[in-house]
Amino acid sequence: MKKYCAVVAGVFLIILISSFKITLPADEEVSYPDGYRSWTHVKTSFLGPQHPNVNYRGFDHIYANDLAVQGYATGKFPEGSVFVVEVIEAVPVENYTSEAERHHMDVMQKDSLRYASTGGWGYAQFERDNSRRMLTLEQQKTCNTCHLKQNDHVFSVLRKVQ
Amino acid sequence: MKKYCAVVAGVFLIILISSFKITLPADEEVSYPDGYRSWTHVKTSFLGPQHPNVNYRGFDHIYANDLAVQGYATGKFPEGSVFVVEVIEAVPVENYTSEAERHHMDVMQKDSLRYASTGGWGYAQFERDNSRRMLTLEQQKTCNTCHLKQNDHVFSVLRKVQ
Repeated sequence: MKKYCAVVAGVFLIILISSFKITLPADEEVSYPDGYRSWTHVKTSFLGPQHPNVNYRGFDHIYANDLAVQGYATGKFPEGSVFVVEVIEAVPVENYTSEAERHHMDVMQKDSLRYASTGGWGYAQFERDNSRRMLTLEQQKTCNTCHLKQNDHVFSVLRKVQ
Repeated sequence: MKKYCAVVAGVFLIILISSFKITLPADEEVSYPDGYRSWTHVKTSFLGPQHPNVNYRGFDHIYANDLAVQGYATGKFPEGSVFVVEVIEAVPVENYTSEAERHHMDVMQKDSLRYASTGGWGYAQFERDNSRRMLTLEQQKTCNTCHLKQNDHVFSVLRKVQ
């Protein structure tokens, strides 16, 4: 009986800890980037089928909204800047590689007040079907750890040719 | 002396024939697509270093202006629709493939009257430095030979996810 109680207590403890995972209130989450398909295409990287990170294999397209494009010129990204990394799976077709289905999307949005704890940028992920992929504040801080080493948290550079 | 004259006449003949290559008047040529870097990115194909066509190896990005984007929805592309295929050379970086320099650009523009002899679409190419690559009318007709088999001459399909 003692053993049974210990197991039940253990399960409760796990549930309790899980419920305390720190997440942002829903109205502070980075929203789905409506209309990003008509934003500026910054660049694409191609990750082959042997790449160690299965989540990013294929075409990794980066899109920037108008505010983010302004930021490339000045080196400082205005409030409201949004970047999308859309990962599209790759499929071999004859002698080249074509796009297939979307795998997922990463989104980062500049809001210095709302996302102060992650360097002024909020981070979100969306699945193939547009649904939100749960990201705890801890996971967003992990995003920030890499991004903060870059120029105003942005890795990419806009190809200059117009 | 006779031999010398024959050579000179031959050279003149070659120059004469060359000058009669049929080209469009300058004001009817498809112009450089100013601002295409902020147009909608339709899709990307990746052609590896073994692809037989050296001119298209790397990232082949397709961009469409607003009129062309409308055409994807209706299946009929309005006058003034413009597509760009920008070929960006690829370079291996660690465990992925990155964009390098532009190789060249292909441009097609819808103008049913001006380009009636090539199916209502004009074709042009631009070099890495934006300068025009000479395309004779005969070469443009070769473009048309493949394109006319497609829906209103357009091969690509716009990824639906918005």
